[in-house]
Amino acid sequence: MNQRLTHVLDVIGPLNATAMAEARARQDVLTKPRRSLGRLEDLSVQIAGIRGSSSPSLRQKLIVTMAADHGVVAEGVSAYPQAVTRQMVDNFIAGGAAINVLARHISARVLVVDMGVVGGVEPQPGLVCQMIDFGTGNMARGPAMSASQAEDALVAGIEVLEAEIERGVDIVGAGDMGIGNTTASAAICAVATGRRVEEVTGRGAGLDDAQMAHKIAVIRKALEVNRPDPGDPLDVLAKVGGFEIGGLAGLMLAAAAHRIPVVLDGFNSGAAALIAAGLSPMAGEYFIAAHMSAEPGHAAMLEHMGLSPLLDLGMRLGEGTGAALGITLAEAAVRLLTQMATFDEAGVSNKE
Amino acid sequence: MNQRLTHVLDVIGPLNATAMAEARARQDVLTKPRRSLGRLEDLSVQIAGIRGSSSPSLRQKLIVTMAADHGVVAEGVSAYPQAVTRQMVDNFIAGGAAINVLARHISARVLVVDMGVVGGVEPQPGLVCQMIDFGTGNMARGPAMSASQAEDALVAGIEVLEAEIERGVDIVGAGDMGIGNTTASAAICAVATGRRVEEVTGRGAGLDDAQMAHKIAVIRKALEVNRPDPGDPLDVLAKVGGFEIGGLAGLMLAAAAHRIPVVLDGFNSGAAALIAAGLSPMAGEYFIAAHMSAEPGHAAMLEHMGLSPLLDLGMRLGEGTGAALGITLAEAAVRLLTQMATFDEAGVSNKE
Repeated sequence: MNQRLTHVLDVIGPLNATAMAEARARQDVLTKPRRSLGRLEDLSVQIAGIRGSSSPSLRQKLIVTMAADHGVVAEGVSAYPQAVTRQMVDNFIAGGAAINVLARHISARVLVVDMGVVGGVEPQPGLVCQMIDFGTGNMARGPAMSASQAEDALVAGIEVLEAEIERGVDIVGAGDMGIGNTTASAAICAVATGRRVEEVTGRGAGLDDAQMAHKIAVIRKALEVNRPDPGDPLDVLAKVGGFEIGGLAGLMLAAAAHRIPVVLDGFNSGAAALIAAGLSPMAGEYFIAAHMSAEPGHAAMLEHMGLSPLLDLGMRLGEGTGAALGITLAEAAVRLLTQMATFDEAGVSNKE
Repeated sequence: MNQRLTHVLDVIGPLNATAMAEARARQDVLTKPRRSLGRLEDLSVQIAGIRGSSSPSLRQKLIVTMAADHGVVAEGVSAYPQAVTRQMVDNFIAGGAAINVLARHISARVLVVDMGVVGGVEPQPGLVCQMIDFGTGNMARGPAMSASQAEDALVAGIEVLEAEIERGVDIVGAGDMGIGNTTASAAICAVATGRRVEEVTGRGAGLDDAQMAHKIAVIRKALEVNRPDPGDPLDVLAKVGGFEIGGLAGLMLAAAAHRIPVVLDGFNSGAAALIAAGLSPMAGEYFIAAHMSAEPGHAAMLEHMGLSPLLDLGMRLGEGTGAALGITLAEAAVRLLTQMATFDEAGVSNKE
C-alpha cells in the first residue's frame, strides 16, 4: 500500500477523552438547564475530543467538492447528460451553484477538485486538478478503475487536505459532483452494509420508475461482473467506486489523522465515508453526519457507521450543501460551549 | 376589544400567491435537480408569499426574547428559583446567555422585553420595558391575570414589533424566559389542543418524577379553578397564561399583519402561537416552526397548527435559541432562491 496512505492510517487515533470530559463539565455549569442544548452539547463535546481542546474554535471552514465522471452512465442510469459534471464545475468556479451560495452564507471557502472529469477542466483559482483519468470505466462491464488508481484517488484526497491545512482548516465538509455517481454509491452501500441493491438504490437526480428498475439491474450486474470483496474497501472502491468517492475517502482519512472534524454530506459523501471507515474504523469518530438525504440508501449508510444526522430536510443535491448546513450547526455548538457565561460568572442561581 | 389589536387582526391577509408561484417557478430552473433542496425550497416559497416578493431578502434579523414571572411557582412547579428570571434578563443584557451567542452567530440582534419580571429590571440599551405587573397571579388559585391585562400584553407585543420595524425587520424569532412558564404553556396546550394534561406536561428545566406528578396536579387544578373557554383565546391567556406568552402572541400577530415571517422557538413560544392562531387562524401561515422541543407537549402544539419543525436536536432551552437556528436556515433558503444561477445563466444542460 502507498506509504502516504499507510502513514495516515497509522496516525489516526482515538478522540481526546480529557478534552471531552472538560467540555462536558463546562456544559454542565453554563447558564442553562443541564442538557437543554440537546445534540448541540454532544456535538461540542465530540469536536472538543477531535481538536484535543475543551475550547475549540471553528473559524476556518472549508468545503471540498470533488468532481469526476462515471463510465457507467453509458448504461443510461442518469437523468442528466454526462456533460453536466463539467458544466457544474464551471458553475462552482463562477459561484452560481447551491454550494457557493451556502458557503457564502456560512462564511466557508469552497475548494473544487477535478478528480477525473471527462474532457478535463482548465486549472484556475479555486480549482485543484488531481485528475486520475477522464472518468471511470463502465462498472457494468468491468472494474470502474484499477487497484492502483483506487490508491491514487485516496492519496490525492490526502494531498488536497494537507495542502489546505497550510491555509488553515478547523473543519471540513465533504461534497461531490459526478453524473452517475449515485449508481456507484448504491453499489458501495450494498457491498459495505450487506443490504440488497433495491433497498439502497434511489432516483438520484430524478429517475422515473422504469429508469429506477434499470438502474437497479445495472448495479446488480456490476456486482456480479466485479464481485467486490466486502472485507477490502480498496477493492470495493476500485471495482464499483468513483474517483471523487475515492478522493473524498482520502480527504476524510487525512482529516481524522490531523484531528479535523469531517462533516459528511449526503449519499456520495456517505459512500466515501464507508470506504474511509472500512480502512480505519476509528476515523468514524471524526465524522459528523450533517443530514439525512432523501436518497433511500443513505439511512443504511449512517446506521452502518453508527451516525445520526443533524438535519432531515429532504435534501438530495450533493455538492456539500447538506455539509454546509451541518458546519454552521457545528460552529453554533462550539460557540455555545466557549462563549456562554457560567452560573458563577453571570450570578445566576443554579437548580435548587 | 382594544382598537390596536382589532386593527392588526383585520389587516392579516393570505400569503401572496403570485410571489409564491414565481418563487416555485424559479426554483425549478435553478442549477440543481428539481426539488433537490427539499424543505428549503418550500421555505423559500413560503417566505416569498409572506414578503410578497419572489426575491425576498432577510438581511435584518431580529430575535425578541420576552421575560416575565409566574405566580404559579408558589406551588413548587419549577426546578429553579423565581429569581432566575431576573438574573437571566441581566445575563441577556450582558451578552452571556445562549441566545446572545446564537444571535451573534447568525448576525441577528436580540431585543429583551420585560413583560412582568418580579422586582422589575432597570431600563437599558437592548431592553424594553412593557411590564404588565410584577408576575402573574397563581393560576392554581385564580386567574393568572385579568382580561384587560391579557389584552394589554397582546398590545404590548404589537407595540414592541412596530417600534422595531422602524429599525428594519425582515424576519423575527420569538423567544421566552420565565421561571414556571412551561406550567402555563402546558395548560394552554391542553386547552387549545384538547389533549390531556399528562400528555402535554414535561419536565421544564429539569423536574424529577415526583415533581412532574405534582406539576400535572397543579395544572389540572388551575384548569378546574379557572375553567378557561377553549373557544376564546383571550380567556385562555388570562386564566392560565403569562405576560411573556401574551406579549409574544401580540408580536406574532403584528408580524403577520406586517408580512414578516415569524420563527417560532419551543414550547412557550408555541403556546403564544396557539393564542395568536386562535385569534387569527391566517396568522399561522406566517409561522415557521424552527425545531421540535424535547418538551413533550410541543409536538401536539405543532400538529394542532399544521406546522412541521425544521430541526429536531433535543433542545429545550427557550430564549429563542431554536428560533435562531431556524432563522439561519430560512436565510439559507432565501439566499438559494435568489442567488443561485439558472440553467440558462450557467450554461448547464437540464434533464434529458
